[in-house]
Parts: sequence; C-alpha cells; structure tokens
Amino acid sequence: MEPLPLLLARAPFPILGILGGGQLGRMLAAAALRLGVGVRTFQTEDSGAAAGSHVFTGAWADTELMRAFATGCHVVTAENEWVELDAVMRVDPAARILPTPTTLELVRNKLVQKQHAEASGLPLGPFCGCDSPASLDEAATRLGYPMVVKRPQRSYDGYGNRTVHDRRQLLAAYADLSDGGVVLVEAWVDFASEIATVVARRPSGEHVVYPLATTIQQEHRCVSVEVPASIPDWVAARARRLAVRAADAFGCVGVVGVEMFELRDGSVLLNEIAPRPHNSGHYTIDACVTSQFENHVRAILDLPLGDTTMLRPAAVMVNVLGRRRGPSSFAAMSAALEVPGAAVHVYGKREVRPGRKIGHVTAVADDLAEARARAHVAAHRLEL
Amino acid sequence: MEPLPLLLARAPFPILGILGGGQLGRMLAAAALRLGVGVRTFQTEDSGAAAGSHVFTGAWADTELMRAFATGCHVVTAENEWVELDAVMRVDPAARILPTPTTLELVRNKLVQKQHAEASGLPLGPFCGCDSPASLDEAATRLGYPMVVKRPQRSYDGYGNRTVHDRRQLLAAYADLSDGGVVLVEAWVDFASEIATVVARRPSGEHVVYPLATTIQQEHRCVSVEVPASIPDWVAARARRLAVRAADAFGCVGVVGVEMFELRDGSVLLNEIAPRPHNSGHYTIDACVTSQFENHVRAILDLPLGDTTMLRPAAVMVNVLGRRRGPSSFAAMSAALEVPGAAVHVYGKREVRPGRKIGHVTAVADDLAEARARAHVAAHRLEL
Repeated sequence: MEPLPLLLARAPFPILGILGGGQLGRMLAAAALRLGVGVRTFQTEDSGAAAGSHVFTGAWADTELMRAFATGCHVVTAENEWVELDAVMRVDPAARILPTPTTLELVRNKLVQKQHAEASGLPLGPFCGCDSPASLDEAATRLGYPMVVKRPQRSYDGYGNRTVHDRRQLLAAYADLSDGGVVLVEAWVDFASEIATVVARRPSGEHVVYPLATTIQQEHRCVSVEVPASIPDWVAARARRLAVRAADAFGCVGVVGVEMFELRDGSVLLNEIAPRPHNSGHYTIDACVTSQFENHVRAILDLPLGDTTMLRPAAVMVNVLGRRRGPSSFAAMSAALEVPGAAVHVYGKREVRPGRKIGHVTAVADDLAEARARAHVAAHRLEL
Repeated sequence: MEPLPLLLARAPFPILGILGGGQLGRMLAAAALRLGVGVRTFQTEDSGAAAGSHVFTGAWADTELMRAFATGCHVVTAENEWVELDAVMRVDPAARILPTPTTLELVRNKLVQKQHAEASGLPLGPFCGCDSPASLDEAATRLGYPMVVKRPQRSYDGYGNRTVHDRRQLLAAYADLSDGGVVLVEAWVDFASEIATVVARRPSGEHVVYPLATTIQQEHRCVSVEVPASIPDWVAARARRLAVRAADAFGCVGVVGVEMFELRDGSVLLNEIAPRPHNSGHYTIDACVTSQFENHVRAILDLPLGDTTMLRPAAVMVNVLGRRRGPSSFAAMSAALEVPGAAVHVYGKREVRPGRKIGHVTAVADDLAEARARAHVAAHRLEL
C-alpha cells in the first residue's frame, strides 16, 4: 500500500468511498466535497438519502459493482458498523479502509465492545453476556433489576434495547433480542446525566475532542443534544479524557462518538462508542468551526484536524423522527423554516416510518434556553 | 404553470435545476441537499467543479439532453448570467426559471444594466455606451480620465475590464474589449472603499439583507472580503437600502450580489449587480446563520428566508486564485489545513490557470485583524 501523502501529491483530488447510503454518508459527502474531495457511495438499497456523490446501489456480493466502486478510491470508510468490509477486501486486498476492519470488529458486537473496553481498563458499569435462562438468572442475581438487555449486533436508535424490571420481562427480552442465542445484559446505571462527545483521531494518534454534550433520550432513543453539557468543568474534563482513552483503546481513525454516563459523584462511565460520525455530533455542522464530518474526512486522509470550538456559546440539536408511515412530504418545510435562527436539515428519505430519523434541526444562541426553544419549535413543525 | 406550494405539497421533495457547472452551482447544490432538495446541473463543459448533483454535460442546443434535465425540475436557476435560458424554454415553455429571464436580460449586458438602473433612479457614477472613436472622444471629454472601459457582456473577475489614462489606452481598450462594436465607458469613481452585500428576495418582494462587506480588489479582481465593512453605521444602513432598491428595480428573485462604492462624503453609488450567489457572499457559509446559497434556494422555492446575522463579530474571505497553468494538485492541502480556524473550500477544478478561482478560505474571529491573518495565511498556502 503506497503512503497516502504520496498518493495525494500525485492525484488531482483524492476520492473517498463511503459504505452505506444513509444520512451519515450524505453529510459526510457534503463535507468531503467542500474540501474538493471526490465522493462515491455504495449502498445495498436506495432510501433516497444518498446524495451528493456517485452512488452505486447493489448487493455486497455484487463483485463487479463493488470493483467499480472501490477501484480508484484513496480511502474507503463506513457510515455504520454493519457494512461488509469483506466485500471491499475481496475486490481490493490493498484497499485503505478506515476505521480499520479491526476497529469495526471490536465495536460491531456490543458484547465484544464491552469486553474490549473492560480489558483496556476503561471504567464501565457491570455487564455480562448471557446465552441461557440459567445465565440470565445468574446475571439478575449479580446485577439486580432493573437491567438493560441489548441485542449484541445491529441495535441502534432504540431498536434492540430494552429495560427490564423482572424475570418475566427479562425472559421476553431474551426471546426477542437474542442473536445466536446471546444477549448483552447491563446493570442499570443510576446516572445523573447521559453525556457524549466526538473525538477525531489521525493514524498517528493525534486527536482533537469536541465539547461535551448532554444527550436527552426517551425509550433508548436520542431526542435532543445540548451543548455544552450542563456538568461541572472538572467532570467535563474527565469525560473528555475518557473519550480519548476509548478512541485510543479501539485504535479508531476518523471520528468516534463516545457515549458516557455522568454519575452523581462526578465520576464518568463509558457506555458505548461508534467509530464514525455520530448523531450527538450533528450540531457541529452549524455550531463549530469544523464539523465532525469534515474532521472525519481530514482524519482518514491523514490531514491536519480542524478546530472543534463552538462559534456561539450554546447549541441544541433536535432529531426529527417520523410520526407516520408513508411517502415523505415537503409540505411542512415552510412552517419549519419560519423559525428564526434554526438550521433545518432534511435527509431526503422517500419513506417515513414512525421513529425513523428523517432530519434534524440545530439552533445556536447565547444560551441553552434560547437555542432549545428555537430548535424544538422548528423540529416539531417539520413533519415530513 | 401550477402554483409552487401545491407542487411542493405533493412531491416528496422538490428538484432544483442549476444551469452552469462552476463553483457557484457546486455550493448551491450543497445548500439545496441540506434542505432535502434534489439537484440537477446542466453544464456545457466539465471543469470538474460540478459535484453533489446529477450532472448533465452537453451543448445548450442538445434538445434531448436539455429535456432530460428540465423535465421534473420544480425550479430552474442560473449560476451565471450567460447561460442560455432559451434552451430551457424551448423544451419546456412553462418552466419556472428564477431569477426570471427578464431580470437576466436586464443585467447580462452591463450597459443595459446601467441604463435600467439609471432609469430606475438608482444613484450611479457617470457612464455611457460608445460605439465609435468619435463617441469615445466625446466620452473622454464628458467623463475625464481615468475611465474604466468594460466589455458589455461576459466581463467578470477582471476579465473584460480595464482602467485607461489617455487616448491611446482608450482606443486600445476599445479594440480589445468591444462587443459588436460597443463598450461601456464609466467615469473613474474616486471612492473611499468598495462595498458589497447580498439581498435575498422572494417572489412577493419579501427580503433579507446580509451585513455590508468591504471588497478588496486588485486589477478589477476581488482578492478578499471583510465583514463587517469598515464604514460608519449610517453609511452601511444607506448602502443596505440601496441594495434592496436595486433588487426591487431588477425584479430579482433569489439572491443578488450588489456591488457599491462608498464615497468620501458618505454617499453610496451603485456599481454592478449580479442576480445569483456572489463571491462577496461566500463568507456567509461559515459566518452566518443561513448562507447566501441556502437563502437562494429558499427564495426561488418561495420558502421563508433565513437569518442573515453573523455567528461571530468578524469574518474575512480570501479567494484562492491559480498561480500556474496545469493539472490541479492536492499537495498543499495539508499546509493550508494546519492554519487553525480557517475554513478551506476547494472547487475541484481539474485544471489550474493563472487568476482562475479554484477555492476560497474563510476565517471568523472576534475581530477583523485575527480573521484577516488566518484567512490570508491559509489561502496563501493553498496552492492547488
């Protein structure tokens, strides 16, 4: 594999390949284009979200299509943890894939991720993997109710996570969520708040960290993100250090979203990481000098990382989730855009489903109260 | 032609057609995609800049290609004044083209533009159209040297403009620049500064105005833009009123860049307008709540206009011009991105030519001095 700086010096402009055609890839493509980087997207189905790039739609196993996509890409990245990197490596064993397949292997399965984090000495709440009613009972004895049961793979945005309060709910969750007979069971963490940040990390380990955010969740689903987090500075500093340790422990290259719990005594536990642009960092597009998407592109191309500071003191990002089932509509756009100072982002998905992320709204302001009011009003009006 | 609100309520997402494949179209496409708007671009040649949209490359006269481009577009817009709107109207007489063909007709020829501005009662420096050596001599007698000679059409970025100091230079400029035997001759305006702003205007006339900018020119070419303009508030207010009057006089829909002269007594003269996103407004991408590109999309889709206020007190945008001839290179990108707090934009043009706009850099800061230092250093390093 030729060193990237040499490749970049020769090619007019590098080409970035993105695996996955959702909103993360869409926003990543926009950031890459700003820098003059060419973009291709590979997706297995067309939701309508992939845009701003040369899109290849087909099965992972379609070798010809994958070869057309991968040939000429300077770097290939993943917009989610479940893309099939093997498909790229089959057509181009020398492909530069970042984050690395090793990193994705360690995070894709949440049980493996927890085990690796524990082995790396990162502070975590109690957890265990369970593969039978007996092991579930053992977990209940050790961890105590309530507990959180998670499908080890492909659980995100509240899909695949459930809080259980008794044995009946535990067994039902196991029946619904087990993957190859296995679930991840976590002790309920009695947190003061849920916090998150994004770390951008170059291959050398050089990194920058975004401000700490409070993430507001309902039913394991992120409703909104408020920045800066309403926590003492010393707790924020501790959380930022933990986030960097996590990025290091998993060898992340690119950006990594790090979700954490702030406990009542000011200590911080790691919850989950995702080695890609993260929902909790969408506010950075409108609120920071350099967005998480641009810093992902910079990091995987081994370019200097950009400034993560905020342009205004406060930012609030509110997810726009589908509230019905059917084709999308642009009809409510006008009402949403009437809200002053709200940055409205629509992902272009052709179909709406209840709970599906179809856009987000960010408002920046001098204080959180003002940003919160604007972002929530605009997001509420944006019924696509 | 069906009313736009009805069309938007029915279609999942509107489709915007952009005529012209340069950097203005590129940045316009990015802004449209953020809003969920689909984008197509029609260009006659492929510079590499058109990206982020479905690109159609061919001759204006290629009826089949133009039909494929135009069919299904909710609105067609122009990224420059010289695109052939007739080609769109030939394949779709009912096409919604904004700014309107009438507006483009009035601005495309700079002599016609000056005459319409004068007829509309807008304050201008003395000018005349000349079509013979005798009329040039008459102009010299009336206006006095130095004068500025302009090719009426297709003069931009310093191409087609020349300052003349005597009869010999005047005749040479006429020989080089006349278009059908005609040149526009303007009295030299002894300005205190050159200022500009962008107005966004909906079909109803509802509008928003961006902050006033100082534009720094060398050899009729914009080197950098500083915001806010270093002029008294009452002069800025006067200039903003003049910009809105100009947008009204030409019936602009979308954004319009308005270039003006600040005179030493605080009066303001109109220089030129361009009814499209304008180089003097590129800073708005990184420095304002809503960019000029997004407000162009909002205005031509008749959606509520966005907030034009700045996120930080000062912004400086520096154009990156080619300094050599040959294929582009990404080699200097790393050095440019090392400058903290500089937003680097690269247009992806495959070929560099001396003076060709290939990118720009914006820095925002608490004061102009800091923004200026950062933007100029990064732009200087960005030798593509």
